[in-house]
Amino acid sequence: MEYRKIRDEGDDRETGIQDVESLREKSVLLSGAVLDNRLASVGETKTDSHRAKAKWKLKSVVTLALTILTSSQAILIVWSKRAGKYEYSVTTANFLVETLKCAISLVALARIWKKEGVTEDNRLSTTLDEVIVYPIPAALYLVKNLLQYYIFAYVDAPGYQILKNLNIISTGVLYRIILKKRLSEIQWAAFILLTAGCTTAQLNSNSDRVLQTPFQGWVMAIVMALLSGFAGVYTEAIIKKRPSRNINVQNFWLYIFGMGFNAIAILVQDFDAVMNKGFLHGYSPITVLMIFNHALSGIAVSMVMKYADNIVKVYSTSVAMLLTAVVSVYLFGFHLSLAFFLGTTVVSVAIYLHSAGKIQR
Amino acid sequence: MEYRKIRDEGDDRETGIQDVESLREKSVLLSGAVLDNRLASVGETKTDSHRAKAKWKLKSVVTLALTILTSSQAILIVWSKRAGKYEYSVTTANFLVETLKCAISLVALARIWKKEGVTEDNRLSTTLDEVIVYPIPAALYLVKNLLQYYIFAYVDAPGYQILKNLNIISTGVLYRIILKKRLSEIQWAAFILLTAGCTTAQLNSNSDRVLQTPFQGWVMAIVMALLSGFAGVYTEAIIKKRPSRNINVQNFWLYIFGMGFNAIAILVQDFDAVMNKGFLHGYSPITVLMIFNHALSGIAVSMVMKYADNIVKVYSTSVAMLLTAVVSVYLFGFHLSLAFFLGTTVVSVAIYLHSAGKIQR
Repeated sequence: MEYRKIRDEGDDRETGIQDVESLREKSVLLSGAVLDNRLASVGETKTDSHRAKAKWKLKSVVTLALTILTSSQAILIVWSKRAGKYEYSVTTANFLVETLKCAISLVALARIWKKEGVTEDNRLSTTLDEVIVYPIPAALYLVKNLLQYYIFAYVDAPGYQILKNLNIISTGVLYRIILKKRLSEIQWAAFILLTAGCTTAQLNSNSDRVLQTPFQGWVMAIVMALLSGFAGVYTEAIIKKRPSRNINVQNFWLYIFGMGFNAIAILVQDFDAVMNKGFLHGYSPITVLMIFNHALSGIAVSMVMKYADNIVKVYSTSVAMLLTAVVSVYLFGFHLSLAFFLGTTVVSVAIYLHSAGKIQR
Repeated sequence: MEYRKIRDEGDDRETGIQDVESLREKSVLLSGAVLDNRLASVGETKTDSHRAKAKWKLKSVVTLALTILTSSQAILIVWSKRAGKYEYSVTTANFLVETLKCAISLVALARIWKKEGVTEDNRLSTTLDEVIVYPIPAALYLVKNLLQYYIFAYVDAPGYQILKNLNIISTGVLYRIILKKRLSEIQWAAFILLTAGCTTAQLNSNSDRVLQTPFQGWVMAIVMALLSGFAGVYTEAIIKKRPSRNINVQNFWLYIFGMGFNAIAILVQDFDAVMNKGFLHGYSPITVLMIFNHALSGIAVSMVMKYADNIVKVYSTSVAMLLTAVVSVYLFGFHLSLAFFLGTTVVSVAIYLHSAGKIQR
């Protein structure tokens, strides 16, 4: 249960750790400056190509970070399960993740203000017009997480894991519709393969039960996939709407609403437990580690949204899923199934096709 | 056991039933002639495009025929198994399939001679230079079928079915090397997907055992895949070497050697059974139906080799495998697994990619 909730949680967070991000920005600006000087005489085109290269590098680094953080997330979950069940309230953990990300954004902003001064793009104050859209992703996730309690009346937990792969398709479709970005036919084919490959990799002897899912279960799974996809795509739209806006400000406003919604969740779900046993009851060192990991994954998701897009995010988390399984072989002595190898093959081909099928602009 | 042997048998046969083929040729010639007359004034280009269209149509029809015949083959096998085990010798059945195809080729040739007279392209007599390569595919299959008896020391029957998908890859690789035909990168990706998709569709709860296959088993499986792929590609090379040569003559020479090799197989394997119980012992109406089906599949393979290629053949037989499963749901109340749906999705995308990835010539 923690696994699913924390994973879903991890899906919708964006944060910005200044140390990481400003470092990144600095190095990019630096290499950009060096290149600009070196290439001043060569003209505009070469500089552009080097900027594109730097952008590509940034995109690759944030994608890699997201992949590694997501897979270490899953490994932490397996680890915590092996170490025994911790009876902490998931809602308080989620609230702390939001709070941590909010705090990180503020620290990052304070450092930027100190260095660069307060500008139009990095000031925290905002207009109602800008901020009014920020609670929407958090609200969508809240509805989705509520639905999650009801879908288990129709589907068991492993079945739900399989149905969650519908997220991949819904993200692609909504990305196309809402952000109006085109994917080539080959890239659509790759997206279908990614969905099929991830599902194949998760197959086990009980997977066929998911085919007996009643109609209501399918409807709920599809609605949840759409909500989750919509929240992701909407977050990208918010972050990309004003590219010059500092990401830490954007994150602050996203997370402050996330904190609010999670506070409500504590009141609704775990009020008694928190009152009787305390806010941090059942926390272990692993719980703290998981909260930090989630906050860091948040940064990575945020950066992928800013510098890449939802499509890259979906590929990245899919690869993380496969990576987790491989690492678990060494860490926990897991066995890889033939289905896993086949699914991994299909996902690998999908990644190749996504890049081979790029629309030439 | 019958299933595998008869299926493998079906893989390497080419035949030509005059009734089907000459009908096809007639209709193509006819439509070609009509078009030639109609378009005489329009010039060369239009006629060419119509010829290409007629060729495409012929290619589609033979591919469809192969798909349907191959899947009905598998259904006949399930049917015969349901009806009880028939204790006929597989070697005598194989010999009769070869003989039937040989006879059909001769009947077809006789009708052509009657209509068109004997020409350089349709006369049966041949040079040693032309005929010397014809026994090679049959010999390769013989070696492969012998190996089949030994591989079961290392792999069980369902595992062997899974390993047989290596044929797909080996056919692609040998097609590239021997026939020197190029596939685009997207088409190679499609070929890998076809292999993964077919294997996924066949997954069941025991499939993971194949991962425990010892090294010798893998080597034998790969050698068998190479032998089978080589035989297929070599047959295409023989048939395509002289495009104007009548296919029935080419088939006659292929099958006469096939008869020879199968006669040897009877002597080696089933001599005692045939001597004691008779040549046709254990034959049932279904056995006869299966022999006719194999002979007809032979025509289809032959035509696909002549008018299309080994790649089309591999896609066609893969689709037949999926089709068989779907039809079995209605005929025998089989259940389709989630793995089957995922495999079918991957194979469908592979087919799309194979056509989308065509190299523009």
